[in-house]
Amino acid sequence: MIPFGCDYNFGAHPAVLRRLEELNATAFPGYGEDELCRRAGKKILARFGCPGGEVYFLAGGTQTNQLVIDTLLAPYEGVIAPDTGHISAHEAGAVEFTGHKVLALPAKEGKLDAAAVARLIDGFRADPNHAHMVFPGMVYISYPTEYGTLYSKEELAALSAVCRSRGVPLYIDGARLGYGLAADVCDVTPEEFAAFADVFYAGGTKMGALYGEALVFPHGGMPAHFATRVKQHGAMLAKGWLIGAQFEALFEDDLYFRIGRHAEKCAARLEAILRAKGYAFYLPRQTNQLFVVLDDDRVKALAPEIGFGFWEKPDEDRTVVRLAVSWATDDEMLRNAEALL
Amino acid sequence: MIPFGCDYNFGAHPAVLRRLEELNATAFPGYGEDELCRRAGKKILARFGCPGGEVYFLAGGTQTNQLVIDTLLAPYEGVIAPDTGHISAHEAGAVEFTGHKVLALPAKEGKLDAAAVARLIDGFRADPNHAHMVFPGMVYISYPTEYGTLYSKEELAALSAVCRSRGVPLYIDGARLGYGLAADVCDVTPEEFAAFADVFYAGGTKMGALYGEALVFPHGGMPAHFATRVKQHGAMLAKGWLIGAQFEALFEDDLYFRIGRHAEKCAARLEAILRAKGYAFYLPRQTNQLFVVLDDDRVKALAPEIGFGFWEKPDEDRTVVRLAVSWATDDEMLRNAEALL
Amino acid sequence: MIPFGCDYNFGAHPAVLRRLEELNATAFPGYGEDELCRRAGKKILARFGCPGGEVYFLAGGTQTNQLVIDTLLAPYEGVIAPDTGHISAHEAGAVEFTGHKVLALPAKEGKLDAAAVARLIDGFRADPNHAHMVFPGMVYISYPTEYGTLYSKEELAALSAVCRSRGVPLYIDGARLGYGLAADVCDVTPEEFAAFADVFYAGGTKMGALYGEALVFPHGGMPAHFATRVKQHGAMLAKGWLIGAQFEALFEDDLYFRIGRHAEKCAARLEAILRAKGYAFYLPRQTNQLFVVLDDDRVKALAPEIGFGFWEKPDEDRTVVRLAVSWATDDEMLRNAEALL
Amino acid sequence: MIPFGCDYNFGAHPAVLRRLEELNATAFPGYGEDELCRRAGKKILARFGCPGGEVYFLAGGTQTNQLVIDTLLAPYEGVIAPDTGHISAHEAGAVEFTGHKVLALPAKEGKLDAAAVARLIDGFRADPNHAHMVFPGMVYISYPTEYGTLYSKEELAALSAVCRSRGVPLYIDGARLGYGLAADVCDVTPEEFAAFADVFYAGGTKMGALYGEALVFPHGGMPAHFATRVKQHGAMLAKGWLIGAQFEALFEDDLYFRIGRHAEKCAARLEAILRAKGYAFYLPRQTNQLFVVLDDDRVKALAPEIGFGFWEKPDEDRTVVRLAVSWATDDEMLRNAEALL
Repeated sequence: MIPFGCDYNFGAHPAVLRRLEELNATAFPGYGEDELCRRAGKKILARFGCPGGEVYFLAGGTQTNQLVIDTLLAPYEGVIAPDTGHISAHEAGAVEFTGHKVLALPAKEGKLDAAAVARLIDGFRADPNHAHMVFPGMVYISYPTEYGTLYSKEELAALSAVCRSRGVPLYIDGARLGYGLAADVCDVTPEEFAAFADVFYAGGTKMGALYGEALVFPHGGMPAHFATRVKQHGAMLAKGWLIGAQFEALFEDDLYFRIGRHAEKCAARLEAILRAKGYAFYLPRQTNQLFVVLDDDRVKALAPEIGFGFWEKPDEDRTVVRLAVSWATDDEMLRNAEALL
Repeated sequence: MIPFGCDYNFGAHPAVLRRLEELNATAFPGYGEDELCRRAGKKILARFGCPGGEVYFLAGGTQTNQLVIDTLLAPYEGVIAPDTGHISAHEAGAVEFTGHKVLALPAKEGKLDAAAVARLIDGFRADPNHAHMVFPGMVYISYPTEYGTLYSKEELAALSAVCRSRGVPLYIDGARLGYGLAADVCDVTPEEFAAFADVFYAGGTKMGALYGEALVFPHGGMPAHFATRVKQHGAMLAKGWLIGAQFEALFEDDLYFRIGRHAEKCAARLEAILRAKGYAFYLPRQTNQLFVVLDDDRVKALAPEIGFGFWEKPDEDRTVVRLAVSWATDDEMLRNAEALL
Repeated sequence: MIPFGCDYNFGAHPAVLRRLEELNATAFPGYGEDELCRRAGKKILARFGCPGGEVYFLAGGTQTNQLVIDTLLAPYEGVIAPDTGHISAHEAGAVEFTGHKVLALPAKEGKLDAAAVARLIDGFRADPNHAHMVFPGMVYISYPTEYGTLYSKEELAALSAVCRSRGVPLYIDGARLGYGLAADVCDVTPEEFAAFADVFYAGGTKMGALYGEALVFPHGGMPAHFATRVKQHGAMLAKGWLIGAQFEALFEDDLYFRIGRHAEKCAARLEAILRAKGYAFYLPRQTNQLFVVLDDDRVKALAPEIGFGFWEKPDEDRTVVRLAVSWATDDEMLRNAEALL
Repeated sequence: MIPFGCDYNFGAHPAVLRRLEELNATAFPGYGEDELCRRAGKKILARFGCPGGEVYFLAGGTQTNQLVIDTLLAPYEGVIAPDTGHISAHEAGAVEFTGHKVLALPAKEGKLDAAAVARLIDGFRADPNHAHMVFPGMVYISYPTEYGTLYSKEELAALSAVCRSRGVPLYIDGARLGYGLAADVCDVTPEEFAAFADVFYAGGTKMGALYGEALVFPHGGMPAHFATRVKQHGAMLAKGWLIGAQFEALFEDDLYFRIGRHAEKCAARLEAILRAKGYAFYLPRQTNQLFVVLDDDRVKALAPEIGFGFWEKPDEDRTVVRLAVSWATDDEMLRNAEALL
């Protein structure tokens, strides 16, 4: 079975696992209050060009989204998100679980339109009945999106400007951030990316860690008593330094971005294979996820041989499937795919 | 620094880490729906003598407590717990965060009295105004307790009988379960323990895993759509198999209990050292945690050399400190402690 | 000022107020456990042809919606609603406050399409990833809708059939139920209406009561320990009998529906006045709310003389305003409106 | 049946009901944004000597407690309360429903001790692990308490000083405030009372209103967007002016305190009757509630003739019952009681 079903199907990048082994016989203080977390945080902030920022390490993506949204929003506020966003569609209502509404806007190729965001916020504020409505208190996007697409620098700048001018923070879910920033079509630097965001996370789970996400407040502003909020959410891990250790490895020798480049190359090669064989793309590929439209017969025939994710059914007889490559993808997998597809 | 500050200050037992290394190049399906989790679950159920039970793997203890309590209680129910219980005192209100009250009863040496539990439940039911009160819907205890003490078989049987006769499930927090069941003073077998409980968790984080807890429903009865509740709580990890892998290693060759025996021996030896040197114990030692009363001068003198936890101040001039041993404790640490104390 | 701004701008129908005066010197037991509530409940059930049903009296509409939705849904479920529905747009996120997502579908003239509901539920159930999504657990509609429109018997039957066949309860917000069922275009009887619904409320606040709504489970099935849930929501009133008393008055001599007929006649007359004077309707009038499109200049000119609600702006220069009549509307108001408009 | 079961068993004081009748034919704007609420608020602030304060009208007591506590606390904070306080014991977990813990302290005669509050707050702040605990963020007391007792001026001053010096607001539940401030043993003026509190409510439901409580921020500081929070809690009534109207009547000609004086006289007389007949008091009477210890046989004999509340059972054979007088108590009731008891 060629493992293209997702980008979180292998353990850890060898350099990450080696780091855990090296540190295994050393005692550390608990709950993330250790030197490894501090050092890893500094390395991340340096790489994103925001040395005055703040970093907090968490275990998983939904947890991170839920925490950021719940702690940055006032209780009467909701979060604007694309209707295809992870928090809108595939987190089982984790945001609503904490009492906040997701104010969904129609997405285009997974992306939110800055003008639509402005209209929603301005319309709310102009509405004489708005005390009876949910206040828009944050904008959520993902980069890359759930459809593997990327906002251009112009689009990010526009969203950021809309948010800043209206005093609404922009939060960017970077579960696959390294795959996005290392993509050929990406036109923002990590520094620019961090400057546009008010808060974002650089994902580890899909980028070579066993588990863990680095939540970054590039301009500071971590909510007061954040550790207590993390604990209250059930999200604090006793052995917090283990995530710090993994991220320190990921941000040494630019490993995080080298992983991104590796996946980009694999994705480009897989795209070329698929194109050469006449497969139809549902969306132009931009990052490490490829969305292909298959006849249902073809889906059945391929399923035992190659892993892929079922995305949606554009019509009765066809299915959109997702193929994903990652840090773990190697030559052999791609050769096998070429032979099989 | 002698690392006796807690039992979660080292990475993973070497056998556990080795297992992760061995599996690192193999692809697995996500979200805990993999063969490793299934196999580890079966091994755990076999060891606890409840092959018809159900197991779910989670990342941390507070998260597990929050999930079990929130999903097993009806929305109008609260959980009875000792006032010194972890959920009462040291989880930042994680239970209340999900809308449920902790109905605290005074603990004795960290333990809940079965008769007091019966009085609370029966008194509630007899109260003509009870529709205006929080319904007692579950009993929470920890084994060992936060004070390192153990319920005797008789005490567990009494609590279990009170719960069963009143239709209220008994949930046992086993963050240090292996240290409890392997203690010299323990008079219950794993099979008996599981039979008394309606739901419990066998902790991994403090027992040799990098992270992870095994939630066990020994007689079945996992709440409907439990995976969705886990996701909604932000508690689902993409790479769920990694916890399964660690627990499979822990429940091979009885490692979980061998770790417990090892800690018991270390604790007994540390206790002997402390007794020989005239230290006063706050509570008789029963498991891997030792509570000692120190003059504050002594605390200051020792602090740079030996890790310990600050527990409480019985008076102005003295402090109760906790020393903890674990799977990671070795001869050298004990010899150093003997020289230092 | 002609008071057409809303249908909740006057105190109580004289017969309702008289009833409160008559009972003022009599003592009653608290919390709705009184004879008046029981009698009023029976009268309501009789009028809706469902004598085996259950009734509970609450103070306000948002509170009732929040309670019904929170108590009937499982914690992992959300409620399907039209995007223009009161719970979607104008209750400040009261549903999300209790942890549940509103699964909004595009409305047409304020109404939900049965086929769209079926597609959402069936699509969810067919989705292999649905454990990561919010379960659709209830359908919410309002009758009349927030746009004053009515579902036809055929439309209600279709929605009810979709819900029943899929085991999802249909909840109907009847804040203005009497105005709907007494409308000329209404083609369902109260008995048919109640038969289609799984739970509904017959509004009092807008139908002649000082305050109060009658929540009806026409086929039984009130959630267990409902009174405790009401208390937990902060929604239990000590003097519960006062709502029972008002509803008993409203359901004597068919007052509730006579009020509806009165408003229908007033609305028809106001519609005729507006049509005669060439006003453009935003939607065809069906009940006691009239939506008219005005030039903004006209809005400014009329605002000091006649009360109306601002609804939306179809373009830069025009505004949709709402005029509402009620039990309190009288000849003089209509004559004044005719002279003014 | 002599109606001494509670102080909320009759409709409204005649002057209050008359006011509603007088205003019944006048249209008002909805949601509490009307002249009546503004005027009533001013009258209340004037009477309590805090003209710069803010007032908001709500329907019921539990709702008010839930709203105040939820909106004034940060999400990681809990509220300190006596263990016999209404929010601790008899509101079905309404505070926990909003995510906050009630930090209960042992009460003496229903009252909280200032020194114990100081110890809790200071102990929390000194605890090196307090990030893992619930932050004490507010102090809740009731005046009079659930046992009819009153804090002396000295006790209130001490509590207020502890709160102010630690930056923790003091919230006083005044469901029966008028009965407390008009009691013979009361040694605080309304102005002093308001000065000690950071927020309190003057109850209407038990003091002559059909329903309604006046929430007072004597020194300002109403939470931002409070109306939206009220709506989000399901607590906003469309016809808000009706509560304003009732409170305007209650604060004209000092009716609120005249009602209090009337009840004090009735209570004193009932106390004298009970003493003369040799009844044993559970607690010395201070306000309009009398707690008497009865043999269970006596309870059975009296129950058909006189209303009382069952409070607790001090032992197997006796019961503590509560008798309550109110604005509605009259000479005949007291004469009947004298004859019967």
